Amino acid sequence: MTKIGVFDSGFGGLTVLKALLELVPDAEYLYFGDTARLPYGSKSVETVAKYACEAARFLEQQGAELLVIACNTATALAFEQIRQTASVKVVGVIEPGAQQAVAVSSIKKVVVIGTEATISSHAYRNALAKHQVESREKACPLLVPLVEEGWTDHAVTQQVAGIYLAEAFADGFSSADVLLLGCTHYPLLKPVLQRVAPKSVTLVDSAESTALTVSNLLGKKSENAGRFGEATHQHPHDDHGKIKFFVTDSAQKFQRLGKLFLGRPMTDVTHIELKE
Amino acid sequence: MTKIGVFDSGFGGLTVLKALLELVPDAEYLYFGDTARLPYGSKSVETVAKYACEAARFLEQQGAELLVIACNTATALAFEQIRQTASVKVVGVIEPGAQQAVAVSSIKKVVVIGTEATISSHAYRNALAKHQVESREKACPLLVPLVEEGWTDHAVTQQVAGIYLAEAFADGFSSADVLLLGCTHYPLLKPVLQRVAPKSVTLVDSAESTALTVSNLLGKKSENAGRFGEATHQHPHDDHGKIKFFVTDSAQKFQRLGKLFLGRPMTDVTHIELKE
Repeated sequence: MTKIGVFDSGFGGLTVLKALLELVPDAEYLYFGDTARLPYGSKSVETVAKYACEAARFLEQQGAELLVIACNTATALAFEQIRQTASVKVVGVIEPGAQQAVAVSSIKKVVVIGTEATISSHAYRNALAKHQVESREKACPLLVPLVEEGWTDHAVTQQVAGIYLAEAFADGFSSADVLLLGCTHYPLLKPVLQRVAPKSVTLVDSAESTALTVSNLLGKKSENAGRFGEATHQHPHDDHGKIKFFVTDSAQKFQRLGKLFLGRPMTDVTHIELKE
Repeated sequence: MTKIGVFDSGFGGLTVLKALLELVPDAEYLYFGDTARLPYGSKSVETVAKYACEAARFLEQQGAELLVIACNTATALAFEQIRQTASVKVVGVIEPGAQQAVAVSSIKKVVVIGTEATISSHAYRNALAKHQVESREKACPLLVPLVEEGWTDHAVTQQVAGIYLAEAFADGFSSADVLLLGCTHYPLLKPVLQRVAPKSVTLVDSAESTALTVSNLLGKKSENAGRFGEATHQHPHDDHGKIKFFVTDSAQKFQRLGKLFLGRPMTDVTHIELKE
């Protein structure tokens, strides 16, 4: 079984892991959450690149044969650095998300939402421009804290999302037909985002797109196409020995909040310290 | 001139520094903001204690003769550890804030708001109970992100603060007459909090209380009592050589957001890395 290393600053990457478990159930997973230093989304290129390279190195030391950067900020700011230092294949979330947005958009106009760091990097704008797709990028710094407060379907969250999207779908972008979720926390806000976005807009989730890319890479294309949302496990909670979690802050805390993102309990969680 | 070391996970501690500059203008200041690892408020005791002790050690190495823990979370979780390892006097924000609340509350019932970590530690409840004052503690995790988004006087912030305070001033605490701001970001929300709190409630700001404690400690009691809000500087922006800032993430970013908290530009900002 392939050993896949998945990493994120904390919890968001669990939405990528969830999608991977659906599409690539016959793999072993090592998940690293840098919870003592989260979030990455408000920090500088240098700091995020340093943290992400440390995380990648750790997962390789644990035997990962493929690395998934399950964090938009780390992919946007440090993809090339990680790829150059890693000795295994590295998959980020930006390119898969951008490619799916390109495929889905009829009028070639896409709105991208993400953290401040992801948006400032213009990683999505550049990836979309290669396919002649125009984009409006909008930083939404309050959405991650709202998800972590558990207000995923709250009136306040709908109001905040409404303010952000009204600013994004304005001027030349009122006709954009795709909303690209450029942060791995945002899949938990899909119902709210679908309600406040213009009616004709399709949501593209970079977590799902990334899982599909990994699946294709491992040669599972025909088998798994279009299987999202179906029950692909006979024993969906029987993860014993199959997923190992490593976190830099408290393991108990990670288990408590992480369940919301992964949709299942996490048993094998180890606290570790990275030497800087 | 006394060299005072002030530290926080990031920006909030600047409200304490601002109060110190008003009450103790004739000192030199070293401010340390651990911006690469912020926030502390959602992290575990072990992680916060480790970070706070590293910060204290750094400031002592820079020559600080007095340490001010300008962060409620670090004070709540690590005060004793810092005090025991430091060789200079250490002042935290909890005890001064609690003492002022005790002095102001007529009916001896206080509502305390703060980060998840500060509230879970029950540091304020314990400090107030020593003076026979009852408290209701309420974690408000969204207030820091709202301040950092710059929405200090926004309808959404008022709605969120209203939800939190309605839950806090309920049941046995509808008659509480003090709202203790147990987070150094909250002074920026004073107008909003005063609007949504019950009419008879007095706001107590732990940043101001802490500056007063430092002032008293340095023997400036009679001179400075009641001077908040007055202009105590002849040249309020002439900080050259008087305040040195050290941050672990980008210096530029710190200067941009920090200005909002300090109410003046910051010139001497150095990026440093702490060895773990």
